[in-house]
Amino acid sequence: MVTRRNLIQAISLGGAGLLTGVARAQHEGHTTSPPTAVPATPPAPPPGALKRHPQGYVPVRTLNGWTLPYETKDGVKVFHLVAEEVEHEFAPGCRAKCWGYNGTTPGPTIEAVEGDRVRIYVTNRLGEHTSVHWHGIDLPNGFDGVGGLNQPHIKPGETYVYEFTLKQHGTHMYHPHADEMVQMAFGMMGLFIIHPKDGEEVPIDRDYCFLLHNWALHPGTYRPDPSIMQDFDLWTFNSKVFPAIEPLVVGLGERVRIRIGNLSMWNHPIHLHSNPFWVTGSDGGRWPQSQWRREATEIIGVGQMRDYEFVPTEPGDWAFHCHMAHHVMNAMGHGIPNPTGVDQSGVEAEIRKMLPGYMAMGKDGMAEHAGHVAMGLRGPDNTLPMMTGEGPFGPVEMGGMFTVVKVREGLAPGDYRDPGWYRHPKNQVAWRISSDPGFGNPVRRQPYGPPQLSAAGSPSPMPDMPGMDHSRHGG
Amino acid sequence: MVTRRNLIQAISLGGAGLLTGVARAQHEGHTTSPPTAVPATPPAPPPGALKRHPQGYVPVRTLNGWTLPYETKDGVKVFHLVAEEVEHEFAPGCRAKCWGYNGTTPGPTIEAVEGDRVRIYVTNRLGEHTSVHWHGIDLPNGFDGVGGLNQPHIKPGETYVYEFTLKQHGTHMYHPHADEMVQMAFGMMGLFIIHPKDGEEVPIDRDYCFLLHNWALHPGTYRPDPSIMQDFDLWTFNSKVFPAIEPLVVGLGERVRIRIGNLSMWNHPIHLHSNPFWVTGSDGGRWPQSQWRREATEIIGVGQMRDYEFVPTEPGDWAFHCHMAHHVMNAMGHGIPNPTGVDQSGVEAEIRKMLPGYMAMGKDGMAEHAGHVAMGLRGPDNTLPMMTGEGPFGPVEMGGMFTVVKVREGLAPGDYRDPGWYRHPKNQVAWRISSDPGFGNPVRRQPYGPPQLSAAGSPSPMPDMPGMDHSRHGG
Amino acid sequence: MVTRRNLIQAISLGGAGLLTGVARAQHEGHTTSPPTAVPATPPAPPPGALKRHPQGYVPVRTLNGWTLPYETKDGVKVFHLVAEEVEHEFAPGCRAKCWGYNGTTPGPTIEAVEGDRVRIYVTNRLGEHTSVHWHGIDLPNGFDGVGGLNQPHIKPGETYVYEFTLKQHGTHMYHPHADEMVQMAFGMMGLFIIHPKDGEEVPIDRDYCFLLHNWALHPGTYRPDPSIMQDFDLWTFNSKVFPAIEPLVVGLGERVRIRIGNLSMWNHPIHLHSNPFWVTGSDGGRWPQSQWRREATEIIGVGQMRDYEFVPTEPGDWAFHCHMAHHVMNAMGHGIPNPTGVDQSGVEAEIRKMLPGYMAMGKDGMAEHAGHVAMGLRGPDNTLPMMTGEGPFGPVEMGGMFTVVKVREGLAPGDYRDPGWYRHPKNQVAWRISSDPGFGNPVRRQPYGPPQLSAAGSPSPMPDMPGMDHSRHGG
Repeated sequence: MVTRRNLIQAISLGGAGLLTGVARAQHEGHTTSPPTAVPATPPAPPPGALKRHPQGYVPVRTLNGWTLPYETKDGVKVFHLVAEEVEHEFAPGCRAKCWGYNGTTPGPTIEAVEGDRVRIYVTNRLGEHTSVHWHGIDLPNGFDGVGGLNQPHIKPGETYVYEFTLKQHGTHMYHPHADEMVQMAFGMMGLFIIHPKDGEEVPIDRDYCFLLHNWALHPGTYRPDPSIMQDFDLWTFNSKVFPAIEPLVVGLGERVRIRIGNLSMWNHPIHLHSNPFWVTGSDGGRWPQSQWRREATEIIGVGQMRDYEFVPTEPGDWAFHCHMAHHVMNAMGHGIPNPTGVDQSGVEAEIRKMLPGYMAMGKDGMAEHAGHVAMGLRGPDNTLPMMTGEGPFGPVEMGGMFTVVKVREGLAPGDYRDPGWYRHPKNQVAWRISSDPGFGNPVRRQPYGPPQLSAAGSPSPMPDMPGMDHSRHGG
Repeated sequence: MVTRRNLIQAISLGGAGLLTGVARAQHEGHTTSPPTAVPATPPAPPPGALKRHPQGYVPVRTLNGWTLPYETKDGVKVFHLVAEEVEHEFAPGCRAKCWGYNGTTPGPTIEAVEGDRVRIYVTNRLGEHTSVHWHGIDLPNGFDGVGGLNQPHIKPGETYVYEFTLKQHGTHMYHPHADEMVQMAFGMMGLFIIHPKDGEEVPIDRDYCFLLHNWALHPGTYRPDPSIMQDFDLWTFNSKVFPAIEPLVVGLGERVRIRIGNLSMWNHPIHLHSNPFWVTGSDGGRWPQSQWRREATEIIGVGQMRDYEFVPTEPGDWAFHCHMAHHVMNAMGHGIPNPTGVDQSGVEAEIRKMLPGYMAMGKDGMAEHAGHVAMGLRGPDNTLPMMTGEGPFGPVEMGGMFTVVKVREGLAPGDYRDPGWYRHPKNQVAWRISSDPGFGNPVRRQPYGPPQLSAAGSPSPMPDMPGMDHSRHGG
Repeated sequence: MVTRRNLIQAISLGGAGLLTGVARAQHEGHTTSPPTAVPATPPAPPPGALKRHPQGYVPVRTLNGWTLPYETKDGVKVFHLVAEEVEHEFAPGCRAKCWGYNGTTPGPTIEAVEGDRVRIYVTNRLGEHTSVHWHGIDLPNGFDGVGGLNQPHIKPGETYVYEFTLKQHGTHMYHPHADEMVQMAFGMMGLFIIHPKDGEEVPIDRDYCFLLHNWALHPGTYRPDPSIMQDFDLWTFNSKVFPAIEPLVVGLGERVRIRIGNLSMWNHPIHLHSNPFWVTGSDGGRWPQSQWRREATEIIGVGQMRDYEFVPTEPGDWAFHCHMAHHVMNAMGHGIPNPTGVDQSGVEAEIRKMLPGYMAMGKDGMAEHAGHVAMGLRGPDNTLPMMTGEGPFGPVEMGGMFTVVKVREGLAPGDYRDPGWYRHPKNQVAWRISSDPGFGNPVRRQPYGPPQLSAAGSPSPMPDMPGMDHSRHGG
């Protein structure tokens, strides 16, 4: 049977699968098979992930990313960043030449502890000069990293050293401050997490982090366009789009922190379903508890960082995404023709002969496309469908900045393995009660003109409860 | 005499008037005349609006909208939403095929009390599948409404049931989570207000609510374009533009809450004139009083909600609007030619022969257009003027997200009737003191070059006070 | 020798220099030489700036701006604003016809004290009507300034009077509320600062203020285009772009406030390097200290104002800018060709023959352009380079909303003179340790596929410390 997944595998460059666990499994080193193969069995627990760092902190979990190893010399933690071009995959089926650090975009997370002295080598393997700014970190002016202002630019081939003592703790980041518009548009960025030296005021069980970004990877191209100001094609969490973004796996009752930074060109409102969270700090530092603010959605401004904290009380698979509807779409999420309400029988196929990859919006909306992928609908080379992903109940019509927080009971501390889709308790899923469009007697209004009920008589909004028709739901 | 209003009536499709009270009057059922007629007398007080709900709360007032009736069955409040296409009027002169619930966009407000158990039927009368997400509400995962992830999609003609207990109170909303970009762009959204079971911590006298949205209804078209990401034509409070947005009527000294949610594609800064307000809660819940934050303008992010609270101390008609200048404009608010500073005598008329509906910006700005409407200037069919509205002192050069908070003394509780324009006390309106352009001796600076006063001698900014010339103001 | 500065001088209209001190020097009246000349010596301390106002407050310092003088008549402070067209310079090399008040955009800052009664004359010398709204100020409705709603419009040539008592203190602004989209797009705006009558709760040593704005001054044109909604060319602090924006000069250990308002069309995230600050108030008023919130970047929404406060602990030159990468660029910051990765030898020169002013992005990024200006690269007339400015270590690749906070020891109170570039202590600047691209053995990852170290063997991120190579840095 031709499924959506099969099809996308067939048309993608390397045939890589869509399972969200793949990228992580590959990073964790549990497979020696070729990169395009899907592991036959779930990966074993990532070794080391369960352990606290010797300095006592729970290491952060960088979504789809990794933490930079360091060595200690004479009491100084020594890190080495390499600015370079990288071959990056946004999701299977879409790769590009980007710029990053140490082989990836975002670069590796730097993790340290308040009071530490850090020395960071930065080697420039790009074709133009660069520099690194340590965003939000209080340090001597000569290490602040604005090329030309605080230091000479790091020329191609050169290595520079930054060395300073961490006087604070919190959620920070690093990025170039030289030809900044271009270098950030190509993906140069990374997280810089500083743990408190006296431990967390409120202990944290899981500590996730990622960066928001946007990419003008025009359909059919292989290199982002840095001159675009707003009209981007890909919207990412740590340079990945749904469904290639890892889920955030969380134990019921655990205290969770999600640290989010933004180096895009939009102020993104990031929404977590059902679990109201507290915003507890920024790149300016952690806030006193009296200031922790309860939200369902928080705007994370460009160049801002926010800590979200919550203790989940309901198990399940909770959507977690940018709330701008176009930012949970991939490359063709805007600027496409709008024939809604027009019968396009025959027309679309004709157009597609002349314009391969053409996808009109459907007569009744766009949902029909999610189901029609098997008919051969596809975009230009190297271009993801606008809406992708498959959930337990059918297509999840999303792309871009969308992933799932998976809350489960009885999870071992530090077990980040994808538990699969949630199994709902019986009768705890919205269910179909009727297939009759004339069901019930709902109160309806005319949008203008005198108000009228849709049917004479009682305004009763519901029928007597008929038998349930829940042929297809969990339990 | 040909007035602006007459003209717009003449060119609008149905000749509907612009009085802001019309839409409400029509909803309230106080007229049985055709929808295009202006009621001859002010409508009577809306029956029932003055009363508290039996559970003790002051019902919210949904701007230009309505609250969904429910029935109670075995202790469960039962509601029925119908997703369907609606014929919607943004303001007289501009209608479109939109999508909504129960006949309107936004759909009706759902109003309940913390601790209530609610059952909500959702019937899909669209041509494509849908689902409903209860934004910000803490509930079992299977009722969270993300199609494919939490439940099967609701296919055309089907009815689904959601049932859950409200564990919280606050300001929430509902919207589809299936083909979300399209369905929200067409207007599918509604408010979901949950009152506290033990009453308000600080009692509220008036409780307004509405949703922000944007629409790509290109000039001359009759259906929104869902593929537009930023370059919208209409900016709405509860799917209406000024001057069709109802005023918020408020008694002097009453405690007022305005609950605002955003399902557009922009983070809108909503500004209230003169009356600094406190932001007291979000869709994540009400905040403790120690966190209530004083603002004149609050950014309401996409997918965010905010509660504004204040007690007005000055009577009058206070502008209340998005502070982005293009968002208080209608369809032609951007992308028009810019001949400011160029004398266009003769040219514009010539162009208009070839390009009906052409409106250049005037030589001295755009204000001239407000006064020249009677000359025959109009846009394409079904397209509102960029700036509309008539105030007590002349044209109010606004459109889009603009309305007025009308603060009055001695208003009966729950009386929401439009009191008309404010009558100012004597000498309490900015007044004309001179018609001489050379009036006074103001200090002026050269924008660059050495500073110079505009006139040699004293920097005195004012003349002796001459007699007032206030031939045209209140009092 | 042909330097970048020489070249830009040569091609600019009047040959004006780029030194940031120029505009201030010109305002302060310390030069009587022609406006295009660079002063030979640093300007003397601005007279009067050191003094407290007789009512006890430290006067605000309006970046690149000025404070409006007033006279007191019968206990009323009397100000006079004149709305008029102004010839404005964004930076040497770029001028435009704008609209402002009293000769400048922004207009002069109005400064007063809580409890004062103010009378403000407004004379309209524009070609169309106007009005003035006193944003965030609690006053009688007839003085609120919405043309048509609260008062008649002020017709060309007329003078109106506003008179009210200041019941509050804080950071406010004024702008038109008539043909608002056009009049604000042309630069009509100003600050309105009200000091507390009982002094500051926490004393402030330096009190800066400015307004954010954006301008659609299309390359080669001389008048902003008010119909643009987002795609602006110039991003300004008080109507100036880097490097023409004054530095904020600050003493080590002083308490600094920066008051920022936004009348643009974007919500700008304004970032201060290294010195975390508290956000302490808004245009809705000052906040209680328990609410002061620590940030490294704060979004200042359109129509919002924010007070930043901090006490610098590290001397140096700290970047202070909008964090949106395109907003620290000038006119050609977006929409330019993207040939990164393509060798353009020969091609660009060919194109430039046909398309004067053509500037492609370089093969390896855009930084090469900063160095190649001497080759003759320039934009259309009256158009600034995308990236300009020269720092102590080479070109600072910025434009737009970028300036520097200069923290120095031992500064006299009220001395706002530019101290020049910071002299770093020895070994306190990032330094070059190697020019060998193969330096060290950094841990690298494959962006996808199984993880691999870049070199077999030890994951050691650093070499033994070699001798420093710091031929070009401070100390």
